[in-house]
Amino acid sequence: MGKNLTTRGEDYSKWYNELVIKADLAENSGVRGCMVIKPYGYAIWEKMQAELDRMFKETGHQNAYFPLFIPKSYFSKEASHVDGFAKECAVVTHYRLKTAEDGSIIVDEDAKLEEELIVRPTSETIIWDTYRKWVQSYRDLPLLINQWANVVRWEMRTRLFLRTAEFLWQEGHTAHATKTEAIAEAEQMMHVYATFVEDFMAVPVIKGIKTESERFAGALETYCIEALMQDGKALQAGTSHFLGQNFAKAFDVKFATKEGKQEYVWATSWGVSTRLMGALVMTHSDDNGLVLPPKLAPDQVVIVPIYRNDEQFDAVSEVANKLVKELRAKGIRVKFDNRDTHKPGWKFNEYELKGVPIRIAIGPKDVEKGTVELARRDTLEKSFINNEDVVDHVDELLDIIQKSLYQKAANHRSTHTTEVESYDEFKKVLEEKGGFISAHWDGTNETEERVKKETKATIRCIPLDDNDASGSCMVTGNPSKRRVLFAKAY
Amino acid sequence: MGKNLTTRGEDYSKWYNELVIKADLAENSGVRGCMVIKPYGYAIWEKMQAELDRMFKETGHQNAYFPLFIPKSYFSKEASHVDGFAKECAVVTHYRLKTAEDGSIIVDEDAKLEEELIVRPTSETIIWDTYRKWVQSYRDLPLLINQWANVVRWEMRTRLFLRTAEFLWQEGHTAHATKTEAIAEAEQMMHVYATFVEDFMAVPVIKGIKTESERFAGALETYCIEALMQDGKALQAGTSHFLGQNFAKAFDVKFATKEGKQEYVWATSWGVSTRLMGALVMTHSDDNGLVLPPKLAPDQVVIVPIYRNDEQFDAVSEVANKLVKELRAKGIRVKFDNRDTHKPGWKFNEYELKGVPIRIAIGPKDVEKGTVELARRDTLEKSFINNEDVVDHVDELLDIIQKSLYQKAANHRSTHTTEVESYDEFKKVLEEKGGFISAHWDGTNETEERVKKETKATIRCIPLDDNDASGSCMVTGNPSKRRVLFAKAY
Repeated sequence: MGKNLTTRGEDYSKWYNELVIKADLAENSGVRGCMVIKPYGYAIWEKMQAELDRMFKETGHQNAYFPLFIPKSYFSKEASHVDGFAKECAVVTHYRLKTAEDGSIIVDEDAKLEEELIVRPTSETIIWDTYRKWVQSYRDLPLLINQWANVVRWEMRTRLFLRTAEFLWQEGHTAHATKTEAIAEAEQMMHVYATFVEDFMAVPVIKGIKTESERFAGALETYCIEALMQDGKALQAGTSHFLGQNFAKAFDVKFATKEGKQEYVWATSWGVSTRLMGALVMTHSDDNGLVLPPKLAPDQVVIVPIYRNDEQFDAVSEVANKLVKELRAKGIRVKFDNRDTHKPGWKFNEYELKGVPIRIAIGPKDVEKGTVELARRDTLEKSFINNEDVVDHVDELLDIIQKSLYQKAANHRSTHTTEVESYDEFKKVLEEKGGFISAHWDGTNETEERVKKETKATIRCIPLDDNDASGSCMVTGNPSKRRVLFAKAY
Repeated sequence: MGKNLTTRGEDYSKWYNELVIKADLAENSGVRGCMVIKPYGYAIWEKMQAELDRMFKETGHQNAYFPLFIPKSYFSKEASHVDGFAKECAVVTHYRLKTAEDGSIIVDEDAKLEEELIVRPTSETIIWDTYRKWVQSYRDLPLLINQWANVVRWEMRTRLFLRTAEFLWQEGHTAHATKTEAIAEAEQMMHVYATFVEDFMAVPVIKGIKTESERFAGALETYCIEALMQDGKALQAGTSHFLGQNFAKAFDVKFATKEGKQEYVWATSWGVSTRLMGALVMTHSDDNGLVLPPKLAPDQVVIVPIYRNDEQFDAVSEVANKLVKELRAKGIRVKFDNRDTHKPGWKFNEYELKGVPIRIAIGPKDVEKGTVELARRDTLEKSFINNEDVVDHVDELLDIIQKSLYQKAANHRSTHTTEVESYDEFKKVLEEKGGFISAHWDGTNETEERVKKETKATIRCIPLDDNDASGSCMVTGNPSKRRVLFAKAY
């Protein structure tokens, strides 16, 4: 009956891989690097999508859809972009198969494309090629558009959700009349992402900007939100880019100002992906399985009946069915698992593995006493609640669990964020404790590269907080404007 | 200020192409055969998706996601399937680009895939390869899964929404323990599609089954819903396939029955696509532009202010803002277009073109009288309504418009459905009137082919109605079990 999960202490990485599969979130497919997102995992992703989509629309964005394929030549138009993206990608070269003489299916060499098509790794180029037609005057601006789509980046080493050749994401692409407005948009979307990740995923994040070397290929500024996993490694949860006029110039997107002048349009792009599923799993889950924040749990409450005969089953079901109705009336997602194909023990185990926030068990004795047994997934605490109090209790408890998960993660991050003054101290903390390390840096690419090469830690971000006292670089001793956050990262 | 739309009478096909572009639904992209779905078009598709998704979930289905790429060898496993699909498709052969000596970007020949990957034209093969791992026992059945995805079929002649190389769709793929259950599922989904298309799109459909030659590649039975466009051509709006055990056998998907025997699983698949957008446009729209059924219109009501100065604008806005609030409280999607960049005439034209069901105009005289001017998009009728009656009137009118559009389309279909007794009569009706032609057919592939070759009309379906009296084939005179529906089709 045990779950036979590797524990986090034994091997964090193995624990994650096993958990994603055993909890039915996703699995590897027969196609190298591509995953199958299973119904339970997809149900969580759908909840994420719904909330994000609502937030995008509330901030004035509309959805649209652009082609999966991008002509090779489009990538060449923005120099830094092609270096960053067009190299490791899926290339479509032919448009027909045929049956060979021996009956096997082969590529038809007569059906070779004149220009190869790239399966989109990101859509800036195809979208800015389209915006040229959409933008003529200041009246057409801003364009505030988002796309939900699949993208492909040919990754050599893949891990479910964290790094896959194909993944699902949204990509916002906006066009503005002024630099100020575009920067405000990029910052706004960083805040939207932070709000979503903190309020719904219960994952605390640091908002910041990327160093030049970690910036998106083609961006002038990359805003990001960084989260800390239980193993002390950081995970970039979302990015929002101020692209300046780079893509407008590459694709010749100009507009007539009110004064009748022709100017290039200012751009942003921003995205989050199914990678968030990885962050969700790695932030909250434990050695017993998933722990889901109530706001994103497909089932928030599961009711398991305990019985030995039909009579007991009927009595228990009566209480359970009434409870289901009352909980649903409150908008709570509840499932009554009355399958007789599985024993209560199996069910307990299953819902623990799947991270259902609250489990309610009802047996004949409970019916007699007018109580139910309630178990919290996050703390594993059990309590007995009187029938008439269950609905209110569950309603409050879901809120408490949501906040408690956030608080626990915030505490973990705070105990795993260390200020260091020297490079030796930095290496010692990185080795022994991990987490975010706040240190002074001289602002040069050379120092950043050296630290990365010597320790595998990268600058996760230059935080947008008030901790901005100047100092001396921990490596070179040169002047530093402010502390930045280093960490090993996913 | 005119829309300069080609009229339906002048050139129906051109009218459609222009309308899709001018109403901001979609446009061609720089990638051959691939379209850009613009925000207004995508907003309608999102409403379709939301309703369909709800209906799928209410009938017990869950969403999941499977890889975009399918290894070439998978297609070879189901013989008829490979013939139907794997020929005209996008083939990925390489996974890297590189910079050539002359600075251009070229395919890296060192990064050739061992086995080519096909961009999915439909996902039966990759999904059944996955189901093999998911199904062991009767307890794992049924599997009721749907996927929202993009697919690619290399089409030579493309038209926005109707036939594009890449399109968006949903594909349901279910696995069952018995043949009876699988057939019931395939039939159920045909009914779900019919309900959606009739109740939400206001497009009447004929439910039926396809002849053998028109069946999905790999299916034992294809159920379909067929709609009739204003030009008298039919459009297949959705299909649901009973796949028998073909895919289970091809991918070795067996299950242990209750009695412990090993049996192959029974399958269905079913899908509708962005093609429905084409059906929506072609069923209801007129020479003035789109006509949208209220249930799918992104904006159901638009309010246009008429004013000459700030004072008038303020007075009109007060009435409009109050109305917006009241309509929204009723769940009605309303927009108050108070932009001062465009004149009322431009706005009237714009919302007519975009098919907004109800337009309300408010000017200073209306404010004085306590009325508004209300215009129906479908009939172009105008009326004056007292302010206190507007909300109830709009609420009822939206319902009336929805039903009226359906009725109008049903009348058109009924006057364009003709029973014929001879092949000569058939050809005459087809030539002069078009529409559905109900005729006796001897059930042979030869006769079906002959009619297709000689007249371009195909058997759209063998209807599942009560009109099943036997007779003699209009072409051969041989016995016919029942009448079938012929038409030229999109």
